[in-house]
Amino acid sequence: MNPIRGFVLVVSAPSGTGKSSVVQGVLAKDERCVMSVSATTRPIRPGEVDGKDYFFRTEDEFQRMQRDGELVESAEFAGNHYGTPRAFVEREIAHGRVVILDIDVQGATQFRATMPGAVMLFLAPPSIATVEKRLRERGTESKEALKQRLARIPDELAHAKFYDYLVINDQLDTAIAAALEIVDSEWRRTSRMNLVGDWCPKEEPTTE
Amino acid sequence: MNPIRGFVLVVSAPSGTGKSSVVQGVLAKDERCVMSVSATTRPIRPGEVDGKDYFFRTEDEFQRMQRDGELVESAEFAGNHYGTPRAFVEREIAHGRVVILDIDVQGATQFRATMPGAVMLFLAPPSIATVEKRLRERGTESKEALKQRLARIPDELAHAKFYDYLVINDQLDTAIAAALEIVDSEWRRTSRMNLVGDWCPKEEPTTE
Repeated sequence: MNPIRGFVLVVSAPSGTGKSSVVQGVLAKDERCVMSVSATTRPIRPGEVDGKDYFFRTEDEFQRMQRDGELVESAEFAGNHYGTPRAFVEREIAHGRVVILDIDVQGATQFRATMPGAVMLFLAPPSIATVEKRLRERGTESKEALKQRLARIPDELAHAKFYDYLVINDQLDTAIAAALEIVDSEWRRTSRMNLVGDWCPKEEPTTE
Repeated sequence: MNPIRGFVLVVSAPSGTGKSSVVQGVLAKDERCVMSVSATTRPIRPGEVDGKDYFFRTEDEFQRMQRDGELVESAEFAGNHYGTPRAFVEREIAHGRVVILDIDVQGATQFRATMPGAVMLFLAPPSIATVEKRLRERGTESKEALKQRLARIPDELAHAKFYDYLVINDQLDTAIAAALEIVDSEWRRTSRMNLVGDWCPKEEPTTE
């Protein structure tokens, strides 16, 4: 009685929430989960593998993909384009995988219309003070950049209500467990199962 | 960041699925969960407490409650009326409780319209052969009654698609854990939280 198809799990969070650690924890503990591989126009770096880290594409090829609707979402950072190839996502879902998409708060709000079956998870920090502490400890930003980042958080939190689920990353283990529960619980949704005709738990569901 | 309100969890299952054991397990392990208390016209039995086991009501009083829309659902068994008082459910939800309603497959399908926020869980046996084995071991039914019960199962399973979640009760502990995960995960739904204006995890959300 496994569902025939997996689903997309969109994860967004204000910076300093610890999103990467939560996502890494989920990937390590639930083998149904895979990270989405993005297409990008950014040049390949030493050690990176095409099709594993990114699908490296030329500017022309990326624009063609965008034009032909081959990307479910795209964004620009530092002059490079990044986008999620629909073909990759569809193939993984068809194989019963949960494809995790790391999308920023602005992008995710539009994403729901593109993929109505996606599960949207918002991770939030326990407080803005915690983010300040975490980012100060990381020490990768100037005082001014840090200030700007912190100033953006209330606006980012205001997007939480557009998501399906909210998990506060107070304790990393607890947040990972909460995200895993959401995956497991969504896995049991009848809407993703093939409960047609005289289905019965022990039988392979027949296709319509 | 607790949600302001709890929710209703409707649990249905074909007979012989082991629904009571799963529900008891959930009630024992999650203190947010309470069993709904039904109103009934059935006479009180020794040891039963009014307002705890049931709200014992006269036929006239029950009919008045039904007429005045005070019951979210009702059914008749063996000449007695049973119904779920809206006031009880609303009060418990307002206190952040998850109110478990044990409703049969026919009743639950209509219930969604009455309470759109309810979470609907369908428990299924691993196979019809398992139900036959369980009911035979229980030995409370005649051969004919057992046969009729088993014959009804395919029709009952066909209702599963109207529910939000499907859990197969193959192993009791696993089924209880799955139900607990669904409760926990639904608890994190943003739609039940009060994420208004400039909410922030560490602050009490303000009311609109």
